[in-house]
Amino acid sequence: MTDKKRAVVLVSGGLDSATVLAMARADGYDCYALAFDYGQRHRAELHAARNVAEISGAIEYKVIPLDLTAIGGSALTDANIAVPDHSDAPGIPVTYVPARNTVFLSIALGWAEVLGAESIFIGVNAVDYSGYPDCRPDFIQAFETLANLATKAGVEGGGLRVVTPLIDLSKADIIRKGIALGVDYAQTVSCYQADDGGQACGRCDSCFLRRQGFDAAGVEDPTRYQ
Amino acid sequence: MTDKKRAVVLVSGGLDSATVLAMARADGYDCYALAFDYGQRHRAELHAARNVAEISGAIEYKVIPLDLTAIGGSALTDANIAVPDHSDAPGIPVTYVPARNTVFLSIALGWAEVLGAESIFIGVNAVDYSGYPDCRPDFIQAFETLANLATKAGVEGGGLRVVTPLIDLSKADIIRKGIALGVDYAQTVSCYQADDGGQACGRCDSCFLRRQGFDAAGVEDPTRYQ
Repeated sequence: MTDKKRAVVLVSGGLDSATVLAMARADGYDCYALAFDYGQRHRAELHAARNVAEISGAIEYKVIPLDLTAIGGSALTDANIAVPDHSDAPGIPVTYVPARNTVFLSIALGWAEVLGAESIFIGVNAVDYSGYPDCRPDFIQAFETLANLATKAGVEGGGLRVVTPLIDLSKADIIRKGIALGVDYAQTVSCYQADDGGQACGRCDSCFLRRQGFDAAGVEDPTRYQ
Repeated sequence: MTDKKRAVVLVSGGLDSATVLAMARADGYDCYALAFDYGQRHRAELHAARNVAEISGAIEYKVIPLDLTAIGGSALTDANIAVPDHSDAPGIPVTYVPARNTVFLSIALGWAEVLGAESIFIGVNAVDYSGYPDCRPDFIQAFETLANLATKAGVEGGGLRVVTPLIDLSKADIIRKGIALGVDYAQTVSCYQADDGGQACGRCDSCFLRRQGFDAAGVEDPTRYQ
């Protein structure tokens, strides 16, 4: 146990959370990486999450099993709902998982309290929050308010912060930031329906935004496509 | 599927949530009972939760496995921390499970969204919130605000309410209310360390408050003690 400040960092195996983890480390935090085995369509992202946590020097990596398929309601947690190809249709997409970030942040909050961590990092960003309600700044602000009412640390201690270093960045900015911090994006998997080897479909929204990001950043896309 | 309004009701197998379920039914809701297998010390409360949900006419009863022992930090989720006997010591007791109600409400929120439910019922009450930060009215209010920012239903739909019908009631009031609605408290288990048959220790905080409640209500205590 060091005297450094501690953070719980939500990791998914994707590009965004790998960047967040590198940023939290660069900010001087001892990082505790938290992932969820929530019934997502493929295992490749959890494999990637573990790799990324190890490479980035996280103190601990924890996977919580939480079967969100018991609730369903999303293309990501219900095998009967197909993942659509990228489209620019307005509204909340079918890949939205009901209350997912609320649930993930809540469990991160519990672990933060046990660890005495002062911050929770989550990689929500501007590109995502156009579609998902639980990626918007006012959602994050409401969660931070809740966190400080919900816990011993909030009520008796120094309080908890929810840190969203990507929230105002474009995908290209995120990639530039990560490259500068030495993130190896070849280790990350963003695709909603990657195969077991972590190869991406190249067609879903997540693949589309990722590829566009590498293009805009002028960085060669290291993604392995099917 | 009926046209009746729907509610997700958090149930634990204990006295309070059995009363809440009866109250939600009496208010005309189709009730979807939600319990968690979170690593609690005994299985008797989940057995009780299923019984109570069936007897009270819940449309569905769902148990979500969620291993909070992976996080620990409480006498209820860490076998190395003993459950203390009742005491009047001030402060947050060791039976407090970090962020438990935040986590439970978050998952209830996800299910409510999938069901199109308009309300989530939770049995927090005045006796409990003296010690646990996540049983206080301002915590509940903050969660309701969050819920309406976090979800499709909140952003695009009619909104979600978090209903706490016990919040201002004493244990005796709760028991009187439940008796009037036909709740069979012999089916409920409140003890933090009941045996596999659901028999209570009679010594922990939860047993103490429950027994005191029956005394004050002038109702014979149907609890089976060890």
